[in-house]
Amino acid sequence: MTQIAVVGATGVVGETILSLLAERGFSKPHVYGSTRSRGQVVAYGSEQCRSKVLWDEPIPRVDLAFFAADEETAIEWAPKFIENGAVVIDNSSAFRLDPAVPLIVPEANGERIHNASLIANPNCSTILLVLTLAPLRALGAFSASVATYQAVSGAGKPGLDALEREVQAGQFLRGDPFPFPISRNLFPLIGSINPETGRTGEEQKMVDESRRILDWPEFELAVTCVRVPVERCHSEAVALHFQSDVRVEEAVQALASAPGVELCLDPEKPPVPVDVANQAPVFVGRLRQSGPRTLEYWLVGDQVLKRAALNAVQIADRVLAHRAPVGS
Amino acid sequence: MTQIAVVGATGVVGETILSLLAERGFSKPHVYGSTRSRGQVVAYGSEQCRSKVLWDEPIPRVDLAFFAADEETAIEWAPKFIENGAVVIDNSSAFRLDPAVPLIVPEANGERIHNASLIANPNCSTILLVLTLAPLRALGAFSASVATYQAVSGAGKPGLDALEREVQAGQFLRGDPFPFPISRNLFPLIGSINPETGRTGEEQKMVDESRRILDWPEFELAVTCVRVPVERCHSEAVALHFQSDVRVEEAVQALASAPGVELCLDPEKPPVPVDVANQAPVFVGRLRQSGPRTLEYWLVGDQVLKRAALNAVQIADRVLAHRAPVGS
Repeated sequence: MTQIAVVGATGVVGETILSLLAERGFSKPHVYGSTRSRGQVVAYGSEQCRSKVLWDEPIPRVDLAFFAADEETAIEWAPKFIENGAVVIDNSSAFRLDPAVPLIVPEANGERIHNASLIANPNCSTILLVLTLAPLRALGAFSASVATYQAVSGAGKPGLDALEREVQAGQFLRGDPFPFPISRNLFPLIGSINPETGRTGEEQKMVDESRRILDWPEFELAVTCVRVPVERCHSEAVALHFQSDVRVEEAVQALASAPGVELCLDPEKPPVPVDVANQAPVFVGRLRQSGPRTLEYWLVGDQVLKRAALNAVQIADRVLAHRAPVGS
Repeated sequence: MTQIAVVGATGVVGETILSLLAERGFSKPHVYGSTRSRGQVVAYGSEQCRSKVLWDEPIPRVDLAFFAADEETAIEWAPKFIENGAVVIDNSSAFRLDPAVPLIVPEANGERIHNASLIANPNCSTILLVLTLAPLRALGAFSASVATYQAVSGAGKPGLDALEREVQAGQFLRGDPFPFPISRNLFPLIGSINPETGRTGEEQKMVDESRRILDWPEFELAVTCVRVPVERCHSEAVALHFQSDVRVEEAVQALASAPGVELCLDPEKPPVPVDVANQAPVFVGRLRQSGPRTLEYWLVGDQVLKRAALNAVQIADRVLAHRAPVGS
């Protein structure tokens, strides 16, 4: 029987990983949270798990360990799980640009998992974009201009709480985790500014990670990442630039057969966050031509409550398909 | 003394035009609203005006008539005011693409007002963008990719009411004037789809009107217009593409001296809707380079409560500077 651990199990992504694992019928995992959440009960399908703290007891021997915690936790504890025989799938950005660690979107580059014992799960805005770039790149795309509309749940429970607090107060409030009010407001500042590039942390991740996942170092991405007062689902407006003339019909064909993509053909019925919440695919709509060499489209995906968690679990599916469990 | 009429005076833009006229010290204008608002009292500085209905009485002889109503009203009634000697400044889209009617952003092409008796005021997302494109075009720009974040007040009072209704209800509601819920949601569908181009009405306006205002027919604009749950101020994420290498410093210089533009140089303090509300300039921040030939920036402007109304009144300022009043 496959033994699993989930680190960061009391966060938004961790909880969703647990629900996906329960749906798949895995036996109850070891779950870990912060000291603050010691002993907290988390749902595992119809069962419950009690959250433990990593430094309270010896690291268990497991087949798979999901890390849905911060970078520091991943850097300190992932190696210990690996030493004990686990394959670690890490959702933090700690290892995403480490050449020795594959950065995986299963639909785009799943074959690169090989026999890695540490696999990095990309930034969730990047996953959504890459799912659409992978099929369209073959048509001759060379650069893209993207603007994002990112839900507060991208900042976890503190983000959801901040929006709710402002809605309840009925006024603009400033305070963690956001640098500006978020109810009836929005702001283009997710992460801090990289002084060399002028990009925010989130924008830099989208540039670096999409190049790495698609093995496309010359890909030019102009991107502005914006936090909006939406609870769930990130949206992105994409303009994709091609080396030579391109037709919408070719893009329709490429996207219609792309794994993980749901194409919405009626332009009067584009995907929107409230309709996409809790669904697994990235929904693509409003596909159109804005010049002979430019296509535009609109995408929406449930970035946490399916995408960040689902991508990690899909990586696990691939890992397990090629391995015998530890206990066997 | 300059005689003025304001048609559509009980709407969001009409009310703002009245407050700008009162600030400028014009005498009380004739104000007109729909039959539903017959007799409604509207503020004019510290005074009040009573809203009349156009077909109730003869058209007065005025120097200036502001139309902040729909296209049908403008098409039927603007000619009658002009026959009576008025210069009409129309905020609807009725005449914006008519080659005989100048489409004016005073800071960009004010000299084209000449002696026109009918002047069109552009779409407000377009005004904000054009204020920044005008100074940057000279650096060799040839195309842009834009995504908008448009406040509900862009749809007037019905838009503001729809957001408020949903916030109060604490649940997603569908209904006029929006095709989707708008609280904690957003949607890329402002206006209906043009079947030839795949663009929405709003996107098509931004393409057609920016080309016309800047007299730049070959300008390529990829644009996605999105309604967001913000009350006031439109924001836009812009990627501007150049024919040859461009430097951020050149753009800083061009924007710093551009009329109507306020440049925010600290990237950690970008302009956001809640801070820009009630201010006249378009605020530009996050100016950066995303490739040797691509600049990116973020802009925010109070599109109704200064921009749509202010642009019309600035046109009037120019008209009056060159004309003697009717009564003299």
